[in-house]
Order: sequence, then C-alpha cells, then structure tokens
Amino acid sequence: MNKTITIAHGNGGEENNELIKNIFYKHFKNDILERSEDAAVLQVAGEVAMTTDSFTVSPLFFPGGDIGKLAVCGTCNDLAMMGAKPKFLTCSVIIEEGFSTRELEKIVRSMKKELEVNGAVVVSGDTKVVPKGSVDKLFINTTGIGEIEQKGISSHNLQEGMSILVSRDVGAHGATIFAAREGITLESTLQTDCASLYPQVKALIDADIDIVAMRDATRGGVAAVLNEWAKASSVCVEIEEEKIPVQEEVKGICEMLGFEAVNLANEGTFVLAVAKADEVKALEVLQQTHESATLIGTVTHQHDGKVILNSSWGTKRFLDLPTGELLPRIC
Amino acid sequence: MNKTITIAHGNGGEENNELIKNIFYKHFKNDILERSEDAAVLQVAGEVAMTTDSFTVSPLFFPGGDIGKLAVCGTCNDLAMMGAKPKFLTCSVIIEEGFSTRELEKIVRSMKKELEVNGAVVVSGDTKVVPKGSVDKLFINTTGIGEIEQKGISSHNLQEGMSILVSRDVGAHGATIFAAREGITLESTLQTDCASLYPQVKALIDADIDIVAMRDATRGGVAAVLNEWAKASSVCVEIEEEKIPVQEEVKGICEMLGFEAVNLANEGTFVLAVAKADEVKALEVLQQTHESATLIGTVTHQHDGKVILNSSWGTKRFLDLPTGELLPRIC
Repeated sequence: MNKTITIAHGNGGEENNELIKNIFYKHFKNDILERSEDAAVLQVAGEVAMTTDSFTVSPLFFPGGDIGKLAVCGTCNDLAMMGAKPKFLTCSVIIEEGFSTRELEKIVRSMKKELEVNGAVVVSGDTKVVPKGSVDKLFINTTGIGEIEQKGISSHNLQEGMSILVSRDVGAHGATIFAAREGITLESTLQTDCASLYPQVKALIDADIDIVAMRDATRGGVAAVLNEWAKASSVCVEIEEEKIPVQEEVKGICEMLGFEAVNLANEGTFVLAVAKADEVKALEVLQQTHESATLIGTVTHQHDGKVILNSSWGTKRFLDLPTGELLPRIC
Repeated sequence: MNKTITIAHGNGGEENNELIKNIFYKHFKNDILERSEDAAVLQVAGEVAMTTDSFTVSPLFFPGGDIGKLAVCGTCNDLAMMGAKPKFLTCSVIIEEGFSTRELEKIVRSMKKELEVNGAVVVSGDTKVVPKGSVDKLFINTTGIGEIEQKGISSHNLQEGMSILVSRDVGAHGATIFAAREGITLESTLQTDCASLYPQVKALIDADIDIVAMRDATRGGVAAVLNEWAKASSVCVEIEEEKIPVQEEVKGICEMLGFEAVNLANEGTFVLAVAKADEVKALEVLQQTHESATLIGTVTHQHDGKVILNSSWGTKRFLDLPTGELLPRIC
C-alpha cells in the first residue's frame, strides 16, 4: 500500500479493491462480510432497532479516543439506548486525497476493538476518496442494527415520581475536544468519556431493572435529553443542580467557553429514568462502572414540558434546550 | 427557516430540531420515523440484505438527477441486485455551513420521489453541519435493508454457456457528470441513467427468470463487474465488443476523456447473467424498460478469471479491471 491514499484508491477498480482488502477487510474480517457482494445477507428475526450516524469530529485523534472508536460507540450506543444488543454495522468512509494510510489503519483498528466490546460485526462498507479540499481529512458513517432485548423503552413513558439518573460525570467529551482543538495542554488526565454503553445496559437488564427511558447525552448534552423527555411525556423534570456530577477540569473549560456542562456533548454517558422503586438498584448497577453515577432528579408536574434546575439555596431556574452555535464537529 | 444552513442547525438543540422537522421529517413522514427515538424500531423477518453508500457527487445537480435521487437509487439498487425489495433506509447528511435551504429541500424532495418508486421509507436520520471548507457543499449517506425475494444470486455462480446481458446502453452517468463538471453544453439530450432498478428486478422475478448473477455497473463500470464475476466464478467472460450499447454522445465524451465507455460509471444500468435457456425471456423483460438492453456475451473457459473482448474482425483483447485515476466524485 502507498503511504497516502490517492484518488485511484476510490476508482471502483484495482486500487480500490487493494485498499478495501488491505485495510478494511483485514481488520473487519467475518463470514458475513466475506460473503457480502452488493449487499450483505443477514438473518434477523423479530423486532430490531436501526440507527445511523455520520462522524465529522475534529481533531481525528484526541485524549481517550479517535473518530474510529467514536463511530462505533456512537451507533452502538444509540442501539443500546433502545434496549438493543448491537449486531450488524455498516461502515462508510469518505477520505481526502493524501490522507495517511497508517492513520487510516489506526482508525480502523480502533473500530475493530470497539466492535468487539459490543459483540458486533461490520457487514458492508463503502469507501470514497475525494480530491484535496473536498473534505477535511476523513468522515465516517456507521449504521447499525440491533436485537431488542428490553422492549418499550421510550421518552414518552415518564410519569410523576420517577427517578432520573446519570451514568457518570457529564461534559467530558465536549471539554476534551475543545481542549484538543485549541491546543490547551491540561496537566490533568481529562479525556473523552467515549465508550460503548451496551455492557452497562445489559447489566441493568440482567438486574431486572425496568428501564423507562434511556438516552445517551450526545450533541446538546444532558440538557437536550431532559428537555426532549419533558416535552415527549408532558411532564416536568426537576433536577438538583448540585447533584449533577462534573469533573473539575470540565468546569474549568466550561468557564473558558462560556458553556454549561449540561450542554456539552458526551459519548459514553447516559441519562436513565426508572420507577422510584428501582432507583437504588439502578444506581448500584451504574456505580459498578462509574462511581460518579448519580441520582440527579425526579419527575413532577411542576411545569409540564419544562426542565427545572433547583439550587441548594432554594432558587429555581429553567434549563432550556440548547440554542445557537454550540461547538461544531464535536462528533 | 433561514435561507441558508448555519452551524446552529447542527447543535443538537432547538435549531437542529427545527431543521429536522421542517425539511427531513416533512418529506420523509412515515409512522416508523415518527416513533423513532435514538433508533427506529422495525419488524423484519428472515433473510434480509443490508448495504451502505456515501454520495459525494459533484455537481450536486446534473441532467436527469441530483445527489438526492442518486443517494436513494444507489442504495436501493444494491439491495435490488441481491434480489431484495428495498424496505428501510437511513439518511445521514453532512452539510457545509452556508448551504442553501431551498437546494437542501429540493434534494430531499428528490429522495422522497425515488423512495416511492422503490416502496421504501426512511426510518432514521442524522444531520451534521460543518464549518465552511470542511466539506464541499453536501454529502449524503444512505444505508438500506431489503427483503430478499429471490435467494442465491451471486457472482460465484457463473458457469460455462451462460448468457450475459446489459439492461441498457452504458456510460451515460459518467459522461453526464463529466460534461456537467466541465461546463460542456451538449446539444444532445444526454442525461444520467440514474434510476431505481427494483421495478426491473421484480419484472424478471415475476417472469420466472432464474437470476444467476446481477450487478449494477457503478464505479468501475461494466468492466469492473465482468472482471469481478470472472474472478469470483473462475470462468472467462467473452463479450462481443460491438454489441455493447453506447450512445453517440457518450462515445464522443469518451474520446475527449480518453476513457472507454465500459469503464464509466452507471447509476441505473445493470449486468445480468442467466442460463442460456432464460436468455430470450430475460432480454424481452429488459427491453420493456429500455430498448437498448442487449445480449453482449457468454461464459466460457477460454481464459479463466479474465474478460475477453471479441471484435467483429476476429481480434481479441483482454478487458481489465480499471486502474488509475478514474473520474472522482462521480457518485
């Protein structure tokens, strides 16, 4: 293989086949992919979840992850959030002419590693090479299918008295990308939260938790999730502001950015709604992965369709859906 | 809606929801999409086909089509070529800041129209907006699932004596894009062949044709398909060069480009292999859609793994897998 990707690597001919064989098939190797022609042939049964996501993150490599890890986590997590076990993924890559072959392989290796965490396989792919300047380095689309293991999870199901938890401290991904992009060298160990969530979802299901609603807090952060839930279920979500776990480094970056941590993107952090009766057990399960998992609020009818932040001084304010120009190319 | 897409339209918050609602949901409207949260929930049964494709075509609008039509045809055709009825598609769009909202809606409308031809629906989507210069205008990924109606179609099945047909004249898409890009105004009516192939596949199945192999001749053209088949089945594909149907305008552009029409991309033209006994019936079915459908060759053991072009003067030459820099951003 050349040291860099050339236009010829996207020609649908000889060099294209070489790229697919030496980079993608090599690492994604599995029976379905090997038998795949214009499309993969799959056996699926019953109710499945399907989701798609394109990844345009910049920089491509950042503390704790890279675009490859992100591309697998992002799509697998969307499946996991619907109570589904990630099974089959497609992978479509758009590469800028001149991109490093070694970096491409590094990204594909990250994808492979993360696929294994999910027990998922890539069954079909596509590779496009575009001339310099048509894309900034590399974009990835992953689309996935999962088998639903707990049915009925939905943002429409919230009811008064239910409990709201977060699976760990919030805002780490957004803060990490911002720091990486601005060249801020942190003395700390701050890194993205980017991780596959299916193992935690499986642990919740195995512990017989009845998951009411579940959502990974990606673009728009925890604020976007809670607002969507409040609206979809016509309830008020009341959050104890000081209970929201945020790392010190993330707080610092939020001050620089003028953002709130609840608006920052996460890539391995989810919000969970369960019945009051399941609250303790659910928290216990979540804390097995992250000690920072916390019960942050409850569902009321104080102001239906809205999210309220209660401070420890007894003041209240609405937490609105994020608006305006948040950080672009965060995922 | 603003006249142009802004960074805020990709923020995961208020403006993002507005874009999704006013452009994508408006045209893609269906029950599954409306109930879709982090992922769509689908009922599927048995053997399905799954495929993905990213579209980076430039220009976005060209005679006979646009990137939207292409994005639906491309993925649905890959499913159809496996004998599958296209059912569920995902649609992920990466938009450059400043892109025209009206053009975006035009593209989405094209997608909708083509989805209807296939009887398919979009069940899940993703929208990213990236800063100016990070992408050239707009890229689309579509990933699809189809229900297999005729099993066992494969490039590994070719045997001596079988017949090779093309569904219409070749090279129109590549030639059209080249002409559009170079600003060549053709007096002729040359336009892309971009079209959904499922209706023709269904007609073949309904006519009880036993489809041996079938492939739409996209990047790499008819030459890439035939070479892949020869290799996969360890046979020789012998083609009567003069029987390959090529429009006069396409021939003219090939001369300018120094390309052969058999290497040019098509987006609504497929190659079909059937048993000799099915040859006449298959040709009849294909000619109901395009009079230019032709029987172009046969399977032999003259040179296994190779494609031979026979001229009417009795000369022979190998038709190789395309190499080098073919036209980029053709699809």
